[in-house]
Amino acid sequence: MSLPDRTIQAPFPKAEYESRVDRVKGRMEARGIDVLVSTEPANIAYLTGYDAWSWYTPQAVVVALDLDEPLWIGREQDMACALWATHLDERSILGYSDDHITDVDRHGMDCVAGQLVARGLGAARIGTEDDGICLTPRGARHLRAGVPGASFVDADLLVNWVRTVKSPAEIDVMRDAGRLALTGMRTAVEVIAPGVRECDAAAEIYRALIAGTGDIGGDAPWRPTMPSGAKTVTPHLSWTDAPYPSETAVNIELGGCRHQYHVGLSRTVHLGPAPEPLRRLAGATVAGFHAMLERVEPGATCDEVQGAFRAEVARHGYEKTSRCGYSIGLGFPTGAWVERTASLMEGDRTVLEPNMTFHLVLGMWAAESGFMFSETVAVTEGGFEALAPFERELVVKA
Amino acid sequence: MSLPDRTIQAPFPKAEYESRVDRVKGRMEARGIDVLVSTEPANIAYLTGYDAWSWYTPQAVVVALDLDEPLWIGREQDMACALWATHLDERSILGYSDDHITDVDRHGMDCVAGQLVARGLGAARIGTEDDGICLTPRGARHLRAGVPGASFVDADLLVNWVRTVKSPAEIDVMRDAGRLALTGMRTAVEVIAPGVRECDAAAEIYRALIAGTGDIGGDAPWRPTMPSGAKTVTPHLSWTDAPYPSETAVNIELGGCRHQYHVGLSRTVHLGPAPEPLRRLAGATVAGFHAMLERVEPGATCDEVQGAFRAEVARHGYEKTSRCGYSIGLGFPTGAWVERTASLMEGDRTVLEPNMTFHLVLGMWAAESGFMFSETVAVTEGGFEALAPFERELVVKA
Repeated sequence: MSLPDRTIQAPFPKAEYESRVDRVKGRMEARGIDVLVSTEPANIAYLTGYDAWSWYTPQAVVVALDLDEPLWIGREQDMACALWATHLDERSILGYSDDHITDVDRHGMDCVAGQLVARGLGAARIGTEDDGICLTPRGARHLRAGVPGASFVDADLLVNWVRTVKSPAEIDVMRDAGRLALTGMRTAVEVIAPGVRECDAAAEIYRALIAGTGDIGGDAPWRPTMPSGAKTVTPHLSWTDAPYPSETAVNIELGGCRHQYHVGLSRTVHLGPAPEPLRRLAGATVAGFHAMLERVEPGATCDEVQGAFRAEVARHGYEKTSRCGYSIGLGFPTGAWVERTASLMEGDRTVLEPNMTFHLVLGMWAAESGFMFSETVAVTEGGFEALAPFERELVVKA
Repeated sequence: MSLPDRTIQAPFPKAEYESRVDRVKGRMEARGIDVLVSTEPANIAYLTGYDAWSWYTPQAVVVALDLDEPLWIGREQDMACALWATHLDERSILGYSDDHITDVDRHGMDCVAGQLVARGLGAARIGTEDDGICLTPRGARHLRAGVPGASFVDADLLVNWVRTVKSPAEIDVMRDAGRLALTGMRTAVEVIAPGVRECDAAAEIYRALIAGTGDIGGDAPWRPTMPSGAKTVTPHLSWTDAPYPSETAVNIELGGCRHQYHVGLSRTVHLGPAPEPLRRLAGATVAGFHAMLERVEPGATCDEVQGAFRAEVARHGYEKTSRCGYSIGLGFPTGAWVERTASLMEGDRTVLEPNMTFHLVLGMWAAESGFMFSETVAVTEGGFEALAPFERELVVKA
């Protein structure tokens, strides 16, 4: 297939991607992996810049110790996306024809396997991302069958752990995503009001997140959630066409999205005077958040950070059973904005380092009330930087 | 875990879901499958109504010939989503705790396996969706290991083929999605203009798609694409912050989304007078589209329908190598809006039936010009119904 002209639009310079690939190769060597077939969309974007929404047909980026740069392999029509979105040499961009789609015999992973064999990697030790959404069991079978002389190992999270510590350039992009999140939250607080349809509020939030500011726009974010009233118990359902009632709590969780890097931010907005139990729960949660922040610094463990929250809310008589946050960064709709590595949960011994970024998520469910509070922070040499600091309280629109 | 109160918000009545499950069970019986573990988000929604954006942690719907209704199994915090989004009895809604997430030993699929064994299905013939994004190789291994007495078969597309023929109620929802698509396209044509930033145009399109009309709002759609100029060769990249130049072609592909049912619609908008080669290409493509429509009726095959397009554009000296469309309906960001069943491509012998719905996608790339044109139709007894009929021409804003 002859490739069209390109104007490279990767968000980072070529050297940034080379440094990422070098770090990934270091981990591959340490684990005796010759070839990594990366299929999780956020990992593909991390390694090459490729951020097209095309994961519904098979695609992969191949990193091999013996190859100077990665290969991008996907559907023929998406080769042009790879050409524009990455710094890869066009000889490293390879595709399969549409007769691999919805075919009972052919599969896009046959093409990946064929490229490995053609490049003399047929006897390699190959790592695959066995729990990253997008590699399917059938895709994995086709890959293995097509490289019968290779051995396979589960290399899930190998790239994700490299992603967990951001570069200064990534932190800059996440600062932009934080500004987008703030724009979105300010809009949410402004438009959510009695009588306004939930869908109209969602429409304005999307507009704010994507139109962004005068200097930067946003990419399509993971879907904001904004349930109200009794429905606040449901964390991941959509809005409806119904208008907000005159007195209710609305739990808003949204993310600013810049070059697919997300910064999460959540608040509860209360329409009408807030009942005492909710105000008490909010006070305890915010106190717990501040207690957590005090522990965010290099050298602390995830377990210690989450423990500070639990200890503080316990003093107020509350308990949280689910985790208190996780490593955040590059995210696509296949995997939300969760990096699947460090978790702020009991027993997670991951040690915080500068330029790790965490979404501290403090959804609290007491008997009568639910309260949602989250922010995203970057670990710094001296502590942390809040990437989207918004009024740290229950927002009351009385 | 004790479950909260519910207000069922499933988009269809219980009988609709029962009829879907019955049809799925019929296909299972025909293939000797006792238990289906469905993991593709659109299939989960089809079988139960569950449409939360929560697929980034393991989840499944289990249909068993021996069980009256399906089981929903996922993360504990999403049980409340299942309670609100489905008609399932609360005893059919089951969850695993957060210590199954990011754990090297535990996996959410252990919980699915455990439920199968507990219900006496440990020796069943179990079907899994081996090429539907969301079942990972590791998830599949945990499922198999947890039901060691079972046998497994690839049941990918079993539910998708049932979904391919819509019910009258589904067609109604898709009519609504079509109205949303029209609102989005009218807004796109209005806002895309020289000097307008691509992100600002995207923001207004999202707003229109989600705010919808006075009577219905939209859900979060698959991301619209709207590349301009030389970048029109890239089908799946995002917008940028750059303003549209004064003379350029913009290829818009968007979908209206109602209860996660999508109706696709594409047009090319040309800013400034359209060059002759583009007008010629557009004329041929639209003529091909009409030739295709004449063949859309029960009894025709997908191959015949796409052949009518190819024959017509060939008369004008053009050729199209990729497919001309596909079955469309329920869609989540994991799989776009593509049903992965019938394709309007050469050799696809699927016979059209009333209430099948197709996105006819006619992206054309000639040497100097690209032209994008698509519409979504429902097959009727007498032919077809256009679900989002928009001006069938190159849209010129001179």
